[in-house]
Amino acid sequence: FDIKMVLKVFLDYMSQPCRAIDMFMNMSNIPFKVKQIALRRGEHKQESFLKLHPLGQVPVLQDGDFVLTESIAMVRYLSSIHTGTRTLYPTDVKQRAKIDEYLEWQHLQTRFISASLFQIEDLKLRVGNLKRAVEAVDDMLSKFEMMFLKDNDFVVGNTLTVADLFALCELIQPTRIGRDIFVGHPRARAWFERAKAASQPYFDSAHAVFHASQKKM
Amino acid sequence: FDIKMVLKVFLDYMSQPCRAIDMFMNMSNIPFKVKQIALRRGEHKQESFLKLHPLGQVPVLQDGDFVLTESIAMVRYLSSIHTGTRTLYPTDVKQRAKIDEYLEWQHLQTRFISASLFQIEDLKLRVGNLKRAVEAVDDMLSKFEMMFLKDNDFVVGNTLTVADLFALCELIQPTRIGRDIFVGHPRARAWFERAKAASQPYFDSAHAVFHASQKKM
Repeated sequence: FDIKMVLKVFLDYMSQPCRAIDMFMNMSNIPFKVKQIALRRGEHKQESFLKLHPLGQVPVLQDGDFVLTESIAMVRYLSSIHTGTRTLYPTDVKQRAKIDEYLEWQHLQTRFISASLFQIEDLKLRVGNLKRAVEAVDDMLSKFEMMFLKDNDFVVGNTLTVADLFALCELIQPTRIGRDIFVGHPRARAWFERAKAASQPYFDSAHAVFHASQKKM
Repeated sequence: FDIKMVLKVFLDYMSQPCRAIDMFMNMSNIPFKVKQIALRRGEHKQESFLKLHPLGQVPVLQDGDFVLTESIAMVRYLSSIHTGTRTLYPTDVKQRAKIDEYLEWQHLQTRFISASLFQIEDLKLRVGNLKRAVEAVDDMLSKFEMMFLKDNDFVVGNTLTVADLFALCELIQPTRIGRDIFVGHPRARAWFERAKAASQPYFDSAHAVFHASQKKM
């Protein structure tokens, strides 16, 4: 057991993809060491971190000399080196392709649109109009239900996969301030509770910091 | 040879990811049948196409009964079923991870930011401010050079990969109207010409419709 060889993940638990990667690795029994990078203290823009990732973003995966950014690329890399990932990211070619389809779709949908509402309403950043951001989330959830959930229990079919972890972590973000985004979306609401329950206790441990920040508000 | 089993790709050559998939499949010697869906005539919103893809987007891959959307998911699926992809999407775990890193990064960078400028300046859509869109492209190209190109010949290392194909197809989009996006970015400019040359004659065949639309303007 060589301590130098343990995977390191640089993350901030307030970041959605960081929480998803934390859950994915814990649920896949992949040993790793968490290095917390506090975004609110600007630690991602400090020289030591910029040497690791020139664009100063989290999460970052370090495997010996090999450094990888982009959470979805990390999912795939980890799946190439650890068999423990096969429950959440199955090796069946077509099943994996449908998970990939969601993971690619979510960048400009679940992720971008939820994050925009969070930035406008919760962080009070002037990056857009609140009414339009709320409408965009509503429209995105309609697409999410029509294209992915359909009558399934989970995002892809009837078992929990890594697609659910990423969707959970993004969709919870704009709810921190108390907003209910699931009005008019009973299927998405039922899925959210089902997927959360299916990923315990890892969901709660990844969201401890997030939930604590809720109570402070 | 069963004609029903030939892969079908529904695409419009004015769409960036459609052109990238066309190049990727042709350069990987994957036989496929092109089904053109003319976005300008609204064919992507017709009932027959919406049965295939409820969100009405291109490209769509059809492999018998199996239907897949999202171009990056298509790259991975095709790489699972065809060995011809190994030159552009190598099987080495770390090399593939760095290609994946770019393919995930590009959604909100190379793709989103180039497309925004194209929509504002070329299509005259009121989706943002021209000056800010030009500055965003400039900033995105700085990141592209710092994070990916560095001193390499191509996006990932010194051989042409599928990352270059996606980058080429996105970055050419805002240049249709005659704009030079590479001012102040000599490395990106040199890469663009190098990658274009390395992917001929497939680049020109995928861009015939795009180039013809340039001449009309």
